Amino acid sequence: MAVARNLPREDGAFGFTSATAEDIDVFRSIVGEEGLVTDAEDLVPYNTDWMKKWSGSSRVVVLPKTTVQVSRVLAHCHARAIAVVPQGGNTGLVGGSIPTRDEVILSTSRLNEIVAFDAAGGVLTCGAGCVLEALDAYLTPRGHCVPLDLGAKGTCQIGGNVSTNAGGVRVMRYGALRASVLGLEVVLADGTVLDLLRTNRKDNTGYDLKQLFIGAEGTLGVVTKVAIATPPRPTAVSVAILKCPNFDVVLQLFALAKTALGEILSAVELMDSLAVETAMARCPGLKRPMELEDGAFAVLLETSGSCEEHDKAKMGALLDRAFAAEIVDDGVIAQDMSQAADLWAIREHVPVAAATGGYQYKYDVSVPIPRFYELVRAVRRRFQELSLAEDRAAAFGYGHLGDGNLHLNVVCARKDDEVLRALEPFVFDWVVAAGGSISAEHGVGQHKRAFLGLQKGPEALALMAAIKRAFDPRGILNPGKVLPDDPVSQ
Amino acid sequence: MAVARNLPREDGAFGFTSATAEDIDVFRSIVGEEGLVTDAEDLVPYNTDWMKKWSGSSRVVVLPKTTVQVSRVLAHCHARAIAVVPQGGNTGLVGGSIPTRDEVILSTSRLNEIVAFDAAGGVLTCGAGCVLEALDAYLTPRGHCVPLDLGAKGTCQIGGNVSTNAGGVRVMRYGALRASVLGLEVVLADGTVLDLLRTNRKDNTGYDLKQLFIGAEGTLGVVTKVAIATPPRPTAVSVAILKCPNFDVVLQLFALAKTALGEILSAVELMDSLAVETAMARCPGLKRPMELEDGAFAVLLETSGSCEEHDKAKMGALLDRAFAAEIVDDGVIAQDMSQAADLWAIREHVPVAAATGGYQYKYDVSVPIPRFYELVRAVRRRFQELSLAEDRAAAFGYGHLGDGNLHLNVVCARKDDEVLRALEPFVFDWVVAAGGSISAEHGVGQHKRAFLGLQKGPEALALMAAIKRAFDPRGILNPGKVLPDDPVSQ
Repeated sequence: MAVARNLPREDGAFGFTSATAEDIDVFRSIVGEEGLVTDAEDLVPYNTDWMKKWSGSSRVVVLPKTTVQVSRVLAHCHARAIAVVPQGGNTGLVGGSIPTRDEVILSTSRLNEIVAFDAAGGVLTCGAGCVLEALDAYLTPRGHCVPLDLGAKGTCQIGGNVSTNAGGVRVMRYGALRASVLGLEVVLADGTVLDLLRTNRKDNTGYDLKQLFIGAEGTLGVVTKVAIATPPRPTAVSVAILKCPNFDVVLQLFALAKTALGEILSAVELMDSLAVETAMARCPGLKRPMELEDGAFAVLLETSGSCEEHDKAKMGALLDRAFAAEIVDDGVIAQDMSQAADLWAIREHVPVAAATGGYQYKYDVSVPIPRFYELVRAVRRRFQELSLAEDRAAAFGYGHLGDGNLHLNVVCARKDDEVLRALEPFVFDWVVAAGGSISAEHGVGQHKRAFLGLQKGPEALALMAAIKRAFDPRGILNPGKVLPDDPVSQ
Repeated sequence: MAVARNLPREDGAFGFTSATAEDIDVFRSIVGEEGLVTDAEDLVPYNTDWMKKWSGSSRVVVLPKTTVQVSRVLAHCHARAIAVVPQGGNTGLVGGSIPTRDEVILSTSRLNEIVAFDAAGGVLTCGAGCVLEALDAYLTPRGHCVPLDLGAKGTCQIGGNVSTNAGGVRVMRYGALRASVLGLEVVLADGTVLDLLRTNRKDNTGYDLKQLFIGAEGTLGVVTKVAIATPPRPTAVSVAILKCPNFDVVLQLFALAKTALGEILSAVELMDSLAVETAMARCPGLKRPMELEDGAFAVLLETSGSCEEHDKAKMGALLDRAFAAEIVDDGVIAQDMSQAADLWAIREHVPVAAATGGYQYKYDVSVPIPRFYELVRAVRRRFQELSLAEDRAAAFGYGHLGDGNLHLNVVCARKDDEVLRALEPFVFDWVVAAGGSISAEHGVGQHKRAFLGLQKGPEALALMAAIKRAFDPRGILNPGKVLPDDPVSQ
């Protein structure tokens, strides 16, 4: 078989080989007919993200069932210089799992075996294709839970979660996902199987290689198995949504909650009034917790602990102090798990609502907590200055206040390049100037690679490129993602 | 200046240039006379570890005061192929900060500035040379604490802690140190300053480069600044030492403590009777909490929380259940912070006692929790089989049960090669076969590099070597440490 050249192309053409019918025959010999998707209609959901922002033209999806199959598929693609896009649940928000052209899509969906659960240590080992919600359901009767929770839990896969270091609503309590990952099995670009599948909580034996794959969005290897520390399932959970008249008192409430709720505080989620109203208007079935005048904020507080009596006492004391100090002027405390789910549903439906009807521009950024909401105001001001009035582009903010992770959404009637030009690079410049991060939890993907240099110095980008070359010398893994430029072999 | 060759030497000689008087003049021009140590007597403590297991013959210690000085020193050493050993508080236990020959020692001791503390976010930014205890003292009046605590806190430096991903007694509560490190400033081998000094809790912008330096023991770069997330200081701490008659009930007590103490359980430390008796015999001033017959265990439990009333109720309930179930048959609960310190002092003096008089062999390993104590028994059995009776070599076990991190110490009257041959590779083979890690928290250093291949596959070792070559192509940083072989440039 001829080896295609894989050099930088001055004409901007794609430097990889397109998979031929013969290549697809090879894939078939490895994964069987049931492990292939080639029908044009069936390919559509693999070639597009759920927001319909990015799309590719891949003509084949390969769904291996075992690590050995992943290895053989990659070895073939490596030898032939065929580019490969690893894809999990395809719930990403930055185009990281969508082909840029006609790459082969390697889906981890069938790598969905639960390998082991160590009850004494609380360590779960499973295939990359396990759906997050299914893992949590597996752990529930065993008294444990997954240390992450996000809106896409019913679809996203743990391998994709790990590859993007996914955030969500439990980071405040359990830390970043990378802190819970104890071990990984990864297949490198050339098919080498890298066994880093440790299950020990402590392991200081040289460079922690697995950290490189966590958040690499499939550009350094394909995660095939994950060992993850699972915390004991909290036996007492309480949820409240409180109304704060302005952002200054939101900050006071946050400080008070940290003191009064201490170690049981598990989530502090913020929604501005427009975020709540958008969810209410577009998602029938949500129960309105309170009236929220323009400019006010809803703060969702959650505690997770081991003693209901103690936890209720702490939440009660917090509310007494917050109302007495006039930090909060309205609120709802869930009386049972069903009401708690209703309150969480509002928060979870904000991004769903933003994606319903019209077009949205989404930004996921870290900002210092005192300046958490400033960016939303800056964007609104910019829209006014540029006469992009509210019927054309409306900005709202919500997100994980506890981690300094703001989600800024801009909803428009339709795709609007003028709005986009008003937003980019403005939003990223603002965030970098404020000492934040242009991607808090969603990753880089296709969306932010061009902006990475705003935040990272050339020294850091050079090391990233050096690592990419060392791990994937032909650059076949997820080209056009994460790195500002694709380093390729000479 | 001539550039020395830096190739693998078949004669086993050191492939680096020795620093000459001219080189020392260059260092003097960078750091001044006050930043140099060249006097033979003054060099001794830098050339030896505190256990006196490893020693080097460095003739110069350079103590830069700024990052720029670190950069200039390294650039010179890189150009001249002079090997460099980064050294913090020199409290390591595997020879990682001790020269193997006459490398230049680069001490971080004078990089000890506190750069910033962000009270809203709880983020501390400081120089690598800050002593851990000094940082905790700085944070105390600010209502925060460092997320790690270890016996060497009065001497060890945060840069060394980060470079070794140091463990200690707070891992159960706050996770591994790497989970708390938000940002680093690192100087690479050639003097390049790498600014990764982020302070955001969430930052998913490509490969998390800082993770490579955490635990690299100075082989990939010199950490010069650290930004670390500091948790709120617990306002209620309680400590108890309980006696368990055998290891099976220790495991029952651990399970019960996790349930009853939940999120406030902050430490579960185990000591066998010989560990306690060794501390009592060799460290005057310790207060005996209880009689501990041969074969019994002392378990130190600590809770750290935000509400003294609730926390005391939880600890009381645990003790009632433990005594009622006859899991525990004696114990002491500290009534105040002074008594709590007395109980911790016993645990902290076990390693000190082992280092007092005679000679010790120390092993720091991860093992699955149900098999936590089995290794100690296996070593004792082996000593008996080899007729290395107890007056010649006595093994005891203690450590962080909550993290599966056993410390196995063997005390001898003197250095005893026969005992060493009985222990190595036996201990490492046993740990690997049990699915553990041959280094839980102490790192690899000089001690364990030859054994790394027992635990890591050739694929992982090859990637480690590739990273080393990419970051330090001439191999000048801490040669003879961590990696089984020193990869050098061609």
